[in-house]
Amino acid sequence: MSRHDPEQAGARSGHGTLIIIGGHEAKKGQRKILKAVAQRVKGGRLVIATVASHRPEGYFESYQEGFDGLGVGELAELYVENRSEAMQEEKLRVLEEATGVFFSGGDQLRITSQIGDTPLEARIKEIHESGGVIAGTSAGASVMCETMLVKGTSEESYRIGNLQMAPGLGLIRGVIIDQHFAERGRMGRLLGAVAQNPRVLGIGIDEDTAIVVQGSHFAVIGSGAVYVADGSGITHSNVAEARADDLISLYDVRLHVLSDGDSFDLEGRRPVSADALKDAVPGD
Amino acid sequence: MSRHDPEQAGARSGHGTLIIIGGHEAKKGQRKILKAVAQRVKGGRLVIATVASHRPEGYFESYQEGFDGLGVGELAELYVENRSEAMQEEKLRVLEEATGVFFSGGDQLRITSQIGDTPLEARIKEIHESGGVIAGTSAGASVMCETMLVKGTSEESYRIGNLQMAPGLGLIRGVIIDQHFAERGRMGRLLGAVAQNPRVLGIGIDEDTAIVVQGSHFAVIGSGAVYVADGSGITHSNVAEARADDLISLYDVRLHVLSDGDSFDLEGRRPVSADALKDAVPGD
Repeated sequence: MSRHDPEQAGARSGHGTLIIIGGHEAKKGQRKILKAVAQRVKGGRLVIATVASHRPEGYFESYQEGFDGLGVGELAELYVENRSEAMQEEKLRVLEEATGVFFSGGDQLRITSQIGDTPLEARIKEIHESGGVIAGTSAGASVMCETMLVKGTSEESYRIGNLQMAPGLGLIRGVIIDQHFAERGRMGRLLGAVAQNPRVLGIGIDEDTAIVVQGSHFAVIGSGAVYVADGSGITHSNVAEARADDLISLYDVRLHVLSDGDSFDLEGRRPVSADALKDAVPGD
Repeated sequence: MSRHDPEQAGARSGHGTLIIIGGHEAKKGQRKILKAVAQRVKGGRLVIATVASHRPEGYFESYQEGFDGLGVGELAELYVENRSEAMQEEKLRVLEEATGVFFSGGDQLRITSQIGDTPLEARIKEIHESGGVIAGTSAGASVMCETMLVKGTSEESYRIGNLQMAPGLGLIRGVIIDQHFAERGRMGRLLGAVAQNPRVLGIGIDEDTAIVVQGSHFAVIGSGAVYVADGSGITHSNVAEARADDLISLYDVRLHVLSDGDSFDLEGRRPVSADALKDAVPGD
């Protein structure tokens, strides 16, 4: 019952699924988010990409425990110390039969600077295009965007010069993602990012919460909320005129607060009813 | 150039000025907020009401320093240990010639439970009605509303059962105020309050930031931002059906981020240009 033709939907993100997580997803108990990832790996190989971390020790093991018993066929780790390693045939082989990739947390710039424009990145996009699942938590969530948030102060209203952005992996277009959202008081910086170009929809994801993106829709799962800041109706913004240490002034942002079971139409920029989504996002 | 007749404006708040502060206003340097209070005391007596505090020691002295040199005629302290003290003639005399009252921080329930419905409260409203200034910071800001926020978790998205509200002093109607706003990540709880009854405009004020309310307009001063959450266009809310530990789901909140120099029309629920406000809010 999707209102959009598949071409359009495909234009937003690949034909597979993105699971974009606000950090600290539960690795014990119900594990709703890891379960959603595992389902979409369909018994195949899931690669845990710990590239974002400067010290990846322990990450892979914690996901081995987290995914235990959830039906993933095989778990493998992908880490690259530096960019030349990212060019090695051996690294690419880790991704060969993979039906899923999971980016753990750390520094989003490590992901893009080490694997951006390498065969690894191309292969990851291929997995997504061909129907696989690409998941990412924390830094691994931010990196999904075309333009990603790198740095910005939390627990503070947005000052014009306060934000660092960089080109991301571009697995999803037209949105900017922020994570650890309510927990770190990041509304200010998300609005700052949206103000810079309201073309981009701002999506703030709480911890242990994820959006499951398929085509041009996403569904919310997990224990927190997802904030969608839509700047298309902004009637006033001082971003261009103000000095770097001036505070933002922004009128008429449309804000949605979504929680588990809610879903969103990225093309129409509207929350949609759970019924309408059932046809678009199978499973879970 | 106000679009509203004075009767209407008067219906929102008294004929004086309210200065509602998000906490931690600067007491050294430029002191923009304290200066705005002092100007409106017009050389008369300013009463520092430390009622919100269980241990008021030091509060009055810090404001003596803060207001030093700003042209306030006389500073006096109003503290009541308990409600029977609030009935004493001697306490009322502190307010007798006052042209301004400043509520310091602490616990908003201490203010309302100790002085609510006493001659002290009546006198404070009289000062406001007759053109004086009532200022309040932190707890002293929250208490201005008809229904005030008392407690709610910060740095968390809003869960339905998470909020404690109580009747406030009612110096300003139709709004709900939250303070230490960006600093404590309180968007979640403000949206929660607005969702309960979108009639109420949510106003979140950062530290060292204030709204100066006169009639049905306010102007923003200080170093932080003011967030206005307008729920009048909300198309979906789960507040009534969900269980106490469920997360909020809320579509189509209109959000404005205002900073120093911006102003807002409370009747029209619109930000207004600085020019339009000049006639409505003199000074500063």
